[in-house]
Amino acid sequence: MLETTQEEQTLSRLQQFSKVLQSGTLQQLQLMLNGLFAAEIAHLLESLPREKREFVWELVEPELQGDVLLDVNDDIREHLIQQMETSELVAATEGLEVDDLADFIQDLPDTVMQLVLQSMDSQDRHRLERVLSYPEDTAGGLMNTDTITVRPNNTIDVVLRYLRRSRGNIPAMTDQLYVVDRENHYLGQLPLTDLLTREPSLRIGDLMNTDHQGILADMPDRDVATMFEHRELVSAPVIDENNELLGRITIDDVIDVIREDAEHSLMSMAGLSEEDDMFAPALRSTRRRSVWLGANLITALLASWVIGLFGATIEKLVALAILMPIVASMGGIAGSQTLTLVIRAMALGQIGISNAGRLIAKELTVGLLNGLVWAFVIAGVTILWFDNVQLGIIIGAAVIVNLITGALAGATIPLLLKKLGADPALGGGVVLTTITDVVGFLAFLGMAALFLV
Amino acid sequence: MLETTQEEQTLSRLQQFSKVLQSGTLQQLQLMLNGLFAAEIAHLLESLPREKREFVWELVEPELQGDVLLDVNDDIREHLIQQMETSELVAATEGLEVDDLADFIQDLPDTVMQLVLQSMDSQDRHRLERVLSYPEDTAGGLMNTDTITVRPNNTIDVVLRYLRRSRGNIPAMTDQLYVVDRENHYLGQLPLTDLLTREPSLRIGDLMNTDHQGILADMPDRDVATMFEHRELVSAPVIDENNELLGRITIDDVIDVIREDAEHSLMSMAGLSEEDDMFAPALRSTRRRSVWLGANLITALLASWVIGLFGATIEKLVALAILMPIVASMGGIAGSQTLTLVIRAMALGQIGISNAGRLIAKELTVGLLNGLVWAFVIAGVTILWFDNVQLGIIIGAAVIVNLITGALAGATIPLLLKKLGADPALGGGVVLTTITDVVGFLAFLGMAALFLV
Repeated sequence: MLETTQEEQTLSRLQQFSKVLQSGTLQQLQLMLNGLFAAEIAHLLESLPREKREFVWELVEPELQGDVLLDVNDDIREHLIQQMETSELVAATEGLEVDDLADFIQDLPDTVMQLVLQSMDSQDRHRLERVLSYPEDTAGGLMNTDTITVRPNNTIDVVLRYLRRSRGNIPAMTDQLYVVDRENHYLGQLPLTDLLTREPSLRIGDLMNTDHQGILADMPDRDVATMFEHRELVSAPVIDENNELLGRITIDDVIDVIREDAEHSLMSMAGLSEEDDMFAPALRSTRRRSVWLGANLITALLASWVIGLFGATIEKLVALAILMPIVASMGGIAGSQTLTLVIRAMALGQIGISNAGRLIAKELTVGLLNGLVWAFVIAGVTILWFDNVQLGIIIGAAVIVNLITGALAGATIPLLLKKLGADPALGGGVVLTTITDVVGFLAFLGMAALFLV
Repeated sequence: MLETTQEEQTLSRLQQFSKVLQSGTLQQLQLMLNGLFAAEIAHLLESLPREKREFVWELVEPELQGDVLLDVNDDIREHLIQQMETSELVAATEGLEVDDLADFIQDLPDTVMQLVLQSMDSQDRHRLERVLSYPEDTAGGLMNTDTITVRPNNTIDVVLRYLRRSRGNIPAMTDQLYVVDRENHYLGQLPLTDLLTREPSLRIGDLMNTDHQGILADMPDRDVATMFEHRELVSAPVIDENNELLGRITIDDVIDVIREDAEHSLMSMAGLSEEDDMFAPALRSTRRRSVWLGANLITALLASWVIGLFGATIEKLVALAILMPIVASMGGIAGSQTLTLVIRAMALGQIGISNAGRLIAKELTVGLLNGLVWAFVIAGVTILWFDNVQLGIIIGAAVIVNLITGALAGATIPLLLKKLGADPALGGGVVLTTITDVVGFLAFLGMAALFLV
């Protein structure tokens, strides 16, 4: 039900759009586009084939273009930036928040980057440089500098008068003011709701919340996301190692981290990237995917070589060739279940030294039990099909061996890859199927050669 | 880098915990636990093997247990609830927000549910029943009823005095007040920041923001999540079809939807569920996974049957048996890349009638191009290995056929499954590999039988 409704909604927006794209006036299209949020335009651009995308992009208002460029995936951003004039690019950076600008500026051609830096006042440039000094995937790279700070000896009344003078200039997603001393050291935070509900004569220093320590600028973005999720934060202060307040992180940027992190595992396991354009030119997609196919060819050749070792055995009993894919595929499937489970648990930070052993033991038990179950079934089918009890026993034994192998490989490969600094989601699947193919063929054909032929 | 740091942090928390679990005092452990947020305790419980988990659970303070139970996955929740006394369960429900209680109460034994309902006052019971009347995966099931409402003819000053009298009782994640008429019809919203920055004498009705329409209670939760993401919301009002205000949705609940949605695709593709306990008893995991293995056995048997049709051909030329897994696996890998791409795009709502045709055409082109590239390589390897040009040409042709088949199947299967109301991520992989195995073996062995042997 949910699926259908969602599809219908998306369809209708895409369809409305397609309709207007095909038969409507430019004015209609522009009106439609300008009623959307930047992220919605980005979502639409990602759904459009290339030539339509370029056409629609021309119609997006210049003041929205910066935000839209930030929301589309890397592939499309690069493509759109290539099409834009220098003056358009400089215009697109105006009005961006500092954290967004920091992400964006690194994708710009050098000449444009210089122009953008020149067009900024020294305070903004200083802020931008501070954000740029931290890697993109840390708290520092994620932060914005639009904090509102107050002093502990101010009263609520003073703060309220200050805010009222600012006339609505409170940045979006501001749920806390930050309390700092004269040297800008972070002391605590004051929820906006306290300003609304507490006595105006109270001192900030007596009211402020000091439970939250502030996030160190070099904390990995994934840990920041976990903290926001677990503590249900809307915003949080970022500090340096001297406890100086650098900026704040807001939940909208954290959601992007959560989304990308979760999609990364899915896409990596198929050798894809979450930043690729669905409608990239066929040649580019071919090139990108061929790397993965090449890696898999090497493992397939290895498996073929193992089969080749038993060519004479197969010639004598062709049933072996008929049945051998079953052994390999059952091991591969069982192993990939364990692999997926472990990759997800690692992404959630739920596997460490203290429980890895227990998990491996459990997965081995599951492998053994499922091995026994399916060995029995497959042996039965084999005996009925080929009227050969020995062959049935051998394939059953090979299935047990390969399911245990799959479980062991699925549980240990991602842990080892991570130790080696590789992406467990990216490499894991190829290594796993290589192992289950080779062990599957070796166990089945090897036992057949020894006992049967 | 990121990976290691995150692992280290998790490790150290898990390790600290393990240490204290093994050698520390109960008091130390309890102190440690009570310093954590509910979601952090849930995360830890999910990482612990069963017997340790039960032990730690006993130490969690009763007033935290309700929130922790809501944060652990379904499997573990069920397990913990089974271990609790009725009185403990009733105590755990106290202090839960209405939306959380609605999720929770459905997992309770009937007798406990009755007790909980009896212990509520009629207003709370009425609110709970309203939330329960909507499916869990809709805006209505996601909403909480803790809205603060104001009338359009009030002035800011009146609202401020009202809030000050409430003395800090503003619910978490409140960034807006909702403006309603006497019949509780939703009129607009008023940001807290407006209360802080605008003239106290201004009327709410003149200030309120009427851009946002309110979310209909039957909107699917996935669409709610997309809206929050695209519009950068912290909270949003939920209305019924008569525009009556029912409650509000907050970003913390939306993040859960985003996280679960993204993980669902990953886990489903391996036949797993994101709600399963990593440390479930081996027998239960075996049973759950055997369904998936059984489905795959049927497809493997189908592939074996196809091979069996060509038994005589293989007997004459054993190289066919050696090479045939290559054809099948290359098609399977290429197809699974397309499948993953399409499943993700569907989850994001980026595929509809207007662009599905274009995407299929693009994937077919990529399949053809990669087919040509790898046909050439595999044919070359085959000719060198077996010194048989005809065999090389035949395997090359089979690879092209199977890569195009994989692309076509990968692009169309999830769309068809969705049309049929099935979960595209769950069924897609099995159907795909069945097709690429059968077509791969059929093309390769069939052409060999026709032209070679």
